[in-house]
Formats: sequence, structure tokens, C-alpha cells
Amino acid sequence: MIDQPRLQGDKIVISVDAMGGDAGPGVVVSGMAESATKNPDIRFILHGPEEALRKLVARRRILAGRVSFRDVADVVTMDDKPSHVMRNGKSTSMWSTLEAVRKGEAHGAVSCGNTGALMALSMLCLRKLPGVSRPAIAVLWPSRNVQGFNVMLDVGADVRADAQDLLQYALMGASYARNGMNLKRPRIGLLNVGTEQHKGRAELKQAHALISRFADQANFDFVGFVEGRDIPGNVADVIVTDGFTGNVAVKTGEGTASLVSELLRESFRHSLLSRMASVLAITSLLRLKKRIDPSRVNGGVFLGLNGTVVKSHGGADATGVSSAIKLAFQLAQSGFSERLAARVASTASLTEDAQAAPDTADKKNQKNEGEQKA
Amino acid sequence: MIDQPRLQGDKIVISVDAMGGDAGPGVVVSGMAESATKNPDIRFILHGPEEALRKLVARRRILAGRVSFRDVADVVTMDDKPSHVMRNGKSTSMWSTLEAVRKGEAHGAVSCGNTGALMALSMLCLRKLPGVSRPAIAVLWPSRNVQGFNVMLDVGADVRADAQDLLQYALMGASYARNGMNLKRPRIGLLNVGTEQHKGRAELKQAHALISRFADQANFDFVGFVEGRDIPGNVADVIVTDGFTGNVAVKTGEGTASLVSELLRESFRHSLLSRMASVLAITSLLRLKKRIDPSRVNGGVFLGLNGTVVKSHGGADATGVSSAIKLAFQLAQSGFSERLAARVASTASLTEDAQAAPDTADKKNQKNEGEQKA
Repeated sequence: MIDQPRLQGDKIVISVDAMGGDAGPGVVVSGMAESATKNPDIRFILHGPEEALRKLVARRRILAGRVSFRDVADVVTMDDKPSHVMRNGKSTSMWSTLEAVRKGEAHGAVSCGNTGALMALSMLCLRKLPGVSRPAIAVLWPSRNVQGFNVMLDVGADVRADAQDLLQYALMGASYARNGMNLKRPRIGLLNVGTEQHKGRAELKQAHALISRFADQANFDFVGFVEGRDIPGNVADVIVTDGFTGNVAVKTGEGTASLVSELLRESFRHSLLSRMASVLAITSLLRLKKRIDPSRVNGGVFLGLNGTVVKSHGGADATGVSSAIKLAFQLAQSGFSERLAARVASTASLTEDAQAAPDTADKKNQKNEGEQKA
Repeated sequence: MIDQPRLQGDKIVISVDAMGGDAGPGVVVSGMAESATKNPDIRFILHGPEEALRKLVARRRILAGRVSFRDVADVVTMDDKPSHVMRNGKSTSMWSTLEAVRKGEAHGAVSCGNTGALMALSMLCLRKLPGVSRPAIAVLWPSRNVQGFNVMLDVGADVRADAQDLLQYALMGASYARNGMNLKRPRIGLLNVGTEQHKGRAELKQAHALISRFADQANFDFVGFVEGRDIPGNVADVIVTDGFTGNVAVKTGEGTASLVSELLRESFRHSLLSRMASVLAITSLLRLKKRIDPSRVNGGVFLGLNGTVVKSHGGADATGVSSAIKLAFQLAQSGFSERLAARVASTASLTEDAQAAPDTADKKNQKNEGEQKA
């Protein structure tokens, strides 16, 4: 019933934008090499100035015979406005990276470039899924949950979202949690300033009603309103919010975690005794770092497009790039994009049914519970 | 020129709501005792069921002769809606706490109760300052700045704010930073999803223009748009945002910091060696805790009212309550409320001037730089 990835064979091909990250193409190629070491089934198409890229790739034996190149001269910079990129972006490495997915040459795309431009070009090149009005960016967030992470979306595709958009985010986030984290029945929370039903903005109250109506047929649990402290918490697996709030929350969390690590390092440098303690404590500290290191959970996934696009952090190091590539690989391998398309299409028709006959639609499809993964 | 606090003498009187916190009045009285130990000039008016409160206070020798009581039977609970409290709240300990400030019996009020109810009753009892359309709640936030903290507002007085409100938040936040953190010329940042001028919502672009126009005459530096990661950063001393975003950001930061501490504790419990390391590392860890412990920076200050109100965290322990009381004490001692009133009044007239003649108003009052503290 669900389409398989368009390319056959055991190899998964990831289309990688070599340009646009803060640290340049060297770090991107290092990240590819890390991924290739861990994963024999991965192949790459690399986009950017071919001559320079061939030299970087040649230094990594593990990449030999696993990379093909697309020579592209232009680059989208961090300062380019999305509107400018929409008009002039087709000659860039970013566009070329996306086009390889559109043409079916690659199973997914990864770029460290400018988020706004990448979203604008992704919408232009890959088009939105039928039934989706606003695509969203989803990130994984270290949390107290068993799986160690929560999904949060939207974290910045669009600064606004109405109730209907928030419902779509809930559906897409639930699909992502099922495929990316293997949760059969993810718990969805709607971000607000309090958990009480009377709190927050009008569109949130509408979204609350809409999402709770679709919980059963879309096979998730709706836990209602959640607060900022639940983003790293264990009451929900998926946190739904508009792109403005989500973006601020993600960056606040990153900033707080990095301040705490910095102060921790400082406090261990404070005296001779504390330096000795830090030597003994080093494995404990590394264990902690592994758990909360943003570069290990690097990668915002664009949801709601015809194809998988992963946005790696602009300041990502090789481990960060590798982790974004791994995410694109996993999603490609699970056929996530096709499953999500099927899910959104079926829910879009249910939404129409529900609007026509609100009482009966709620009971529809409940028997499918647990059978579908998308 | 600036009014002194209404009560004379060297003693500062803080009006304390004994009820409404998660842990009950015992913790509130312990917090008062901690404050009284550190501060010989503090006196209290305590509101709640007098008989029970007298017993709690009698156990603390340091409080002998320093507390007067107001016997009040009713309590605002965490579940009470602000609208319900507006109609029925006048018989509660919360109302009585505020009324002591309104009547001039106390220099400031502290409550651990329901935030929405406390703001609603504060507006009803103390009234907004002339020229303020929406009061705001400001918190201190651990940061990389020299002073160790940033101010952020609004963190939840109101879920919406237009450009004019954001300007008022900037003015009030600047005053608070001058009085609370002794910064002559605070740096103000406006929270957005990126630092580029074209990003974000329409009202933020308007607010950007408004705030930068008033920076000089209101004696602050406007650093423009800042991001979530700048909230614990060092590019701005005051972060201005609407109450929805601010509330989510504060709670996300709290949640992240507490997750990191928890994982840190876990990783030190992991093996015998790491337990030994933690014994050696204990001073380093306590040093860190002291720096980021939310209970040491406990207290949201309500800005824009005729009087000082500090909201202590509902789950605050004695140290948290004591820190909220200390904040109310410091603000009362500096005559902050009166200075802020003067500042807002003068700016309100400047705003009117500026709207009438935009070009000339900008230069006005620049010579006052550094002379006024409000």
C-alpha cells in the first residue's frame, strides 16, 4: 500500500549541499566520512565547486567510489533573504541538492545553509504535500522520556500558525515520532503558557478542540496543553507550537544548556582540588555531554514536502553533519516521506468529512489502530 | 524630585501573603526568617489565618516583634480563574496583602500564589501607572553578563503585546535594570527568531523602529533583535518580548537547566569511581548550583503598577521565598516604584511629542544622560 523509496537496491543515496555552513565544505566532507564509516550502505551526491570538493573527498579513503559530484558555482549565504533566493536561487548548490531529490536521484537532502532560504527553495523545488498548507521544521530535543528525546515542531518554518496548521503539525509530528522514534502511539502536547484549558490565545483553544477530535483516528494520544518545562520533560513525545514560539524555545534551551556546560567547566577549573576532581569525573561528564550534546541530535527535518530535507545547524561540526546525514538516511530507509504523504492525504479527507459531519467522523478508522505506522 | 517611600523610618515593611504557595505557610514563614536573619531592617505584615500563622512565627525567635498579622480566612487557589478572583477575591489573603501596599502600610508585597490572579488583583487594587497600558512581569535570568543576570519581560502578564506595549516594556525593563542591577545604561534587546531586520512578525518590526527612536532619551542602548540563545547570553541586559513567548522561554530554560542538573547527578551515581569523583567535585558542583539555582533568583516583579509586587514561584522553598522578599526589599529601599512612575510619565509625554513631531523629539533630553537613575 505504501510506496517504497524511488531508488531501488540496498544503497541509500543522500544529496548533500557542501556549501553554506559556517565552517565551510571541509567539515561537511568530514561529516560524510564519519557517516560512511558507520554505514556501509550510504552513498552521496555532493553539490558545490567540483574541483575543490574532489580534493577534499580524495583525502578520505572511506569515501572512495561512494560520492558523485554536481559542479555548482553559486552559494546561498547566511545573509541572503528568502525572497532574493526565490528569484535567484536556481544556480546555487542548495537548489541542486534539492533537485537531486526531486528527480529521484537521491532519497533525501542535507544542507547546513540558511534555514529560510532552504525552506523557500524546498517548497519551490519539491512542492508541498497535497493537503498541507504550511510545512514545518521538526527537531529532536533531549528529554526525560524513555527514548531520550522529544519531537518539537514547528521551530521556524513560519512565524504564524492557525488552529488548522497546528492540527497538521500534530499529525505530521505523530508520524515523525512513529517512524523516527518507533513509538506506536505517540503522546502529543500543545505548547501554551499553562496547562489549564482557559489559558492562552484564542487559536490555541481552537487547536485544542481540533487536535483532540482527531487523536483517535490519527492514532495518537493528545495530552492537551503543555508548558515550556515539558519540552525537555516526559509528559509528551511531540510538542506542537507555531514557528515563532518554537524557534525561541529551541534557542533558549540551546543557550541554557551551553551556559550550564560552560559554568560547569569553569567551576572545575577553579582550584587544584576541583581540577583533580574533574579528572576523576571525566567519564561522568562525558556521559552527560553525550546525552545533551546538541551536535548529536543535530538536524531539523522539513515536514510536509514531497521528499526528505534535513537542515543541519549552520555551525555544526563534523559529528553534527554526520548526525544530520544519519537522520536523513534513517528517514529515507523507513520510507517516511511516502508514509507521511499517505497519512496526510487520508487525514485531509477525514478533515473534510469531519467538517461536514462532526459527530460521525470521530469514530471512523479507529479499528486501524496499531496497524499503520505512518 | 522623586518621592521617597511612603513610610518613614529605617525599617522597610514587606507585606507577605502566607497562603497560595504549593508548600503552605510554613515555608513562607521559614523564608521570612531567613530574610530577617540577613537583614535587621526588615519588618513584615503577614496575611492569612492568624491563629495558625502566629504559631508558625512563634517558633522563629528571629521574627519576634517583627511581624504584624492580618487575619484573613479565604485563599486564592492555583486553580482559580482570574475572572472568578476578580469578582470574589476581596476576602482573600492575596487581596489583603496588596491592600497593605495600597494603604501605605507596607513598601512592597510578596505572594507565592496564582500568577494570573495576583496580576488581576494587583491591577484592581493598586491600579496601573498613568501612561501604562499593560503591566508586565519581569524576571532575572542567569546569564554570561558581568552582573550574572539578565532581565526578561514580559513573562506572562499578558499573552499579547503590540509595538507600543513592547516599547513600554523596554522603558520599564531599562528602569528595572538601572535600579535592580545598578546598570547606568542598560542594553535592550527585542526577542525575535533571528537578528536580521527582515525577520519576524510585523509588530516586531514596528517595535524595533519605536524602541530605537526612544533609546537615547530614555538612556538605554538598543541592540536590536536578539534570539533565544541571547536570553542567557551577554549581548543584552534586558530582553523584551510578549508574555506568551516570554513565559514559554522562561519555562523552557528552567526545564532545560533542571534536566541538565538531573542528568549530571545521575551520571555521578553511575559507578563507584564516579561516586568518588562526585565527593571531590562537590564544591565545584555547589558553586555551579549557586550560580544557576532558580530559587536564588526567584521572583517575578510586576512592573507598571502603583506599588511593588513580587510574585514568588508557587513551588518555592524557604530560600526561594527569602530571595523574593529580598528583591521586594531592595526595590522598596531604592524607591524604584516611584522612580519608574516618574520615568513612565515623562516618557508618555515624550511619546505624544514624538507622535506630533517625530524629528525633534529624538534629540530632547539627551543631556540628562546619566543624571537620572530611573
